[in-house]
Amino acid sequence: MIERIHKTLKEDLERIRTEKPLIHHLTNFVAMNDSANITLAIGASPVMSHAHEEVQEMVAAASALLINIGTLDEYWIQSMLLAGRKANELNIPVLLDPVGAGATKLRSDAASNLMNEVNFTIIKGNYGEILSLAGGEGAVKGVDSASEDFDAELLRNFAERMNGVAVATGKYDYFSDGKSVFRLENGHELLASITASGCMLGSVIASFMAVQSDALLAAIEGAACYAIAGELAAVKSAGMGSFRTNLMDEVAALNAETVLERMRLEEVL
Amino acid sequence: MIERIHKTLKEDLERIRTEKPLIHHLTNFVAMNDSANITLAIGASPVMSHAHEEVQEMVAAASALLINIGTLDEYWIQSMLLAGRKANELNIPVLLDPVGAGATKLRSDAASNLMNEVNFTIIKGNYGEILSLAGGEGAVKGVDSASEDFDAELLRNFAERMNGVAVATGKYDYFSDGKSVFRLENGHELLASITASGCMLGSVIASFMAVQSDALLAAIEGAACYAIAGELAAVKSAGMGSFRTNLMDEVAALNAETVLERMRLEEVL
Amino acid sequence: MIERIHKTLKEDLERIRTEKPLIHHLTNFVAMNDSANITLAIGASPVMSHAHEEVQEMVAAASALLINIGTLDEYWIQSMLLAGRKANELNIPVLLDPVGAGATKLRSDAASNLMNEVNFTIIKGNYGEILSLAGGEGAVKGVDSASEDFDAELLRNFAERMNGVAVATGKYDYFSDGKSVFRLENGHELLASITASGCMLGSVIASFMAVQSDALLAAIEGAACYAIAGELAAVKSAGMGSFRTNLMDEVAALNAETVLERMRLEEVL
Repeated sequence: MIERIHKTLKEDLERIRTEKPLIHHLTNFVAMNDSANITLAIGASPVMSHAHEEVQEMVAAASALLINIGTLDEYWIQSMLLAGRKANELNIPVLLDPVGAGATKLRSDAASNLMNEVNFTIIKGNYGEILSLAGGEGAVKGVDSASEDFDAELLRNFAERMNGVAVATGKYDYFSDGKSVFRLENGHELLASITASGCMLGSVIASFMAVQSDALLAAIEGAACYAIAGELAAVKSAGMGSFRTNLMDEVAALNAETVLERMRLEEVL
Repeated sequence: MIERIHKTLKEDLERIRTEKPLIHHLTNFVAMNDSANITLAIGASPVMSHAHEEVQEMVAAASALLINIGTLDEYWIQSMLLAGRKANELNIPVLLDPVGAGATKLRSDAASNLMNEVNFTIIKGNYGEILSLAGGEGAVKGVDSASEDFDAELLRNFAERMNGVAVATGKYDYFSDGKSVFRLENGHELLASITASGCMLGSVIASFMAVQSDALLAAIEGAACYAIAGELAAVKSAGMGSFRTNLMDEVAALNAETVLERMRLEEVL
Repeated sequence: MIERIHKTLKEDLERIRTEKPLIHHLTNFVAMNDSANITLAIGASPVMSHAHEEVQEMVAAASALLINIGTLDEYWIQSMLLAGRKANELNIPVLLDPVGAGATKLRSDAASNLMNEVNFTIIKGNYGEILSLAGGEGAVKGVDSASEDFDAELLRNFAERMNGVAVATGKYDYFSDGKSVFRLENGHELLASITASGCMLGSVIASFMAVQSDALLAAIEGAACYAIAGELAAVKSAGMGSFRTNLMDEVAALNAETVLERMRLEEVL
């Protein structure tokens, strides 16, 4: 896998930039602007649309669908179900970002319901959210825990059960396709100091998912690009305000060679 | 017209900055923050309000109304109709930004419905959106086309039919009042690299529309200010992140002399 | 009071940064992203949630609740009532930012209704909004007035009646707990040049309210931190675009000593 990334990353990044795949976002009100901009920065085309009358038509025009439940309500849950099912029907890859799963019953139920009704290509959440969905005994307690690491075995089992790729983000980012588990050690603490950081990561991964059919590869490529752009932005930043600005600049300027040089990726299981 | 702008631009910009006209926005969730800030940057006062119970009252307090269908749904379409009709009743100028017209049936229908129910002072869209509304045979195909230029005759006919001013943005910006057609060649590619760029242009034009009753003049003045601020911001920017920041600074610092010096405007029909 | 702030500010700021209290926001679409980021900048944890099914559960997990009516509609008004009542039941402090009260009947009614149904720990608005709620004869006229100063007696009476702390922001910021009135003279005009500035101030005050049970103290501490970060950011900024960025950096980097040195606070009644 690590060798494969060295072969595919450059091409996948170029494909995003030349094909500009349309990434349909059903995301939260806080992240919408940031997610649209980071999608443009990596080279893809964002579109936001939630009306029940048009979500299916918009999905049909898109190369990937991203569903993020950060500020969900009944109307939006219905939009997400409509869009997700349509994407499955048309074989368009779908990413779920289960923001706050485990924090309230509505979010946990919405995430479960979505997982029952839609086959997700990738589910990406922070440690707590993935723990909550993976449902280990007592796991839910840690929703916003600052736990330093993630249980690779648990992630593999979850990915196997969901029949897709699972990504758990935190101090390190973990990736599994249900068979192996990889750990990425790149990133910078400033990435955790801004809002919508995880949401933007979702947009970058979805952009790779639109051009790379191996979802595990797409997830790692997207996460590596985002984390390394964060590292490059951090050294130029006086604080989280300027970091936000520099992060956009660095994602837009990213080249595959830099990412591959700096990438610290390991197979852990 | 070109001579007239040389006489009016300075005064119109000063009127915006001293009178701070209230620009009522019914716009999309992605652009709301950027549109509010660019409206403040040019010197006007933004207000966002969509509740059916208050849109009419808010319109009555405003000097211009902007309707942008970027993340529309049934509730918001109704808000737009209520606000638009009220603006017509009170002779308050109204700008339509038909984001995504041609991309889905809901958006095309909403734009048509709005055009039937409300007399728009200005309709501003990108080449594809205006083509879609103007409805030439096969024109709809080009919604997101990278077509390099726009058919001036088609724009004039559309403006004549809508009985207002039509603006088609792209590599060049075209303006018509149904009689003549002007082309503005200013701008910078970084303007196309950020989200809500067209939405912000709408806010700047709406601010000029609030103080200048000649809508063709208002549209060209607003577009020239925005495009030239973009040119000035671009030379200071490391990428699209810093460009967003610098664009706000440059719009706020803009003076009429610079705009008139740099403006590349031509009558093409 | 002024002496007390010199004792508590450092500790309260440190408590925010170490405890990272969860600040539940029910705020407007324009401010959501900025409010989330400023909350992170001061050191607290923002969460946005409005679904009727989860607001009460989310409130129960929070250390403070902020209600801002900037883009209200029927659904959101109901969310605010549900969340506000729950917060009262659980003794979680609640801040009201009555954006646009006095500007439309819906906003004035919503603010009154919220004040009848929920006991607010702090109500913070600009001069016009507070005048409108305080309801002096003819006071409503001045909703967006550029009046240079605020009537301290009126503020004290309003605070007494609402049985909480009232904050009126403008050229100077005024604070009252119904007994005394304080005036803060810090700030910078660039703070008035960006959207959501008042909304962000609300988030900073709510963050202090989460760790400091004396609401008058919390309100002054929050306002002093925000205003002084604004002063520090202004000297580094080329305009309102860069000011927004620098404001986030300065809030995140703020230390209590600088705030106490620069603070210009007076007891005026």
